[in-house]
Amino acid sequence: MLPDEADVLLVQDNPLEVELTLRPLRDLDPACRVGVARDGEEALDYMLGRGSFRRRLGALLPRVVLLDFRLPRVDGIEVLRALRSSPRTSTAPVVMLMPSLEPRELTYCYQAGANSCVQKPVDFQLFYQTIQMVGRYWLGQNLAPPLAARQESGRATKR
Amino acid sequence: MLPDEADVLLVQDNPLEVELTLRPLRDLDPACRVGVARDGEEALDYMLGRGSFRRRLGALLPRVVLLDFRLPRVDGIEVLRALRSSPRTSTAPVVMLMPSLEPRELTYCYQAGANSCVQKPVDFQLFYQTIQMVGRYWLGQNLAPPLAARQESGRATKR
Repeated sequence: MLPDEADVLLVQDNPLEVELTLRPLRDLDPACRVGVARDGEEALDYMLGRGSFRRRLGALLPRVVLLDFRLPRVDGIEVLRALRSSPRTSTAPVVMLMPSLEPRELTYCYQAGANSCVQKPVDFQLFYQTIQMVGRYWLGQNLAPPLAARQESGRATKR
Repeated sequence: MLPDEADVLLVQDNPLEVELTLRPLRDLDPACRVGVARDGEEALDYMLGRGSFRRRLGALLPRVVLLDFRLPRVDGIEVLRALRSSPRTSTAPVVMLMPSLEPRELTYCYQAGANSCVQKPVDFQLFYQTIQMVGRYWLGQNLAPPLAARQESGRATKR
């Protein structure tokens, strides 16, 4: 589930939510390369090019990381802090997927350097629409930092 | 042009670009309160509640700041750095409006703490679409930090 180069890195341990996230991204752009890390440790190994992903040191980064707030092993906020503290990943765009609107959790995320926080709707259709909007914005509109995978013109920019 | 509370703070010195930015935001939501600061100094006074905006100290912050990269008096990147270094505004969502795709400028912006960078298209229609997408995402989808103006349900969430 982790290609050498991905446009999106999804960090999510819940298999249903993985499926619910992949579908809208692929509907938006069938060529979109989505890597899935099942916990925070795997996400950090992938992003930082360490452990079983040592070959990725120097590879392009995803244009956006969709990072679940609640994760096993290494929690979402700890993953975010680790990304921000490494020169390689300090500017990588990270969108936090939040289980609730808890103000304290939002504050933690922004203080730790989240680019954006988005609530995961419980309703399937709203979840689909939310992920499509996130994909459209971060793949089609946002200018990723230079270390990220290049956007091919016309991809993921449909409105 | 600067209400006591704004949903969006636009920091832009070019009057044509101000008009081109206000239109798509108001079409998205006629009730959207957009404050316009004409230079970096005015933007910082407004956000930090100082100078002629001392009455705003303690007021809610905009849900998003649209900050032009090139500004008179205090440059966009300096405004961004000043916002990040004050506890009051350190987590305020800031979208940089970029004149070009220059990799070095993008790196500066992300290193200084930009949440997102968006290119300003030269074409009027593309400019309109870009600002609407930015408004939809940052007003309708993103969860702003607790200090920001509250989103009224159903506003700016049309897709």
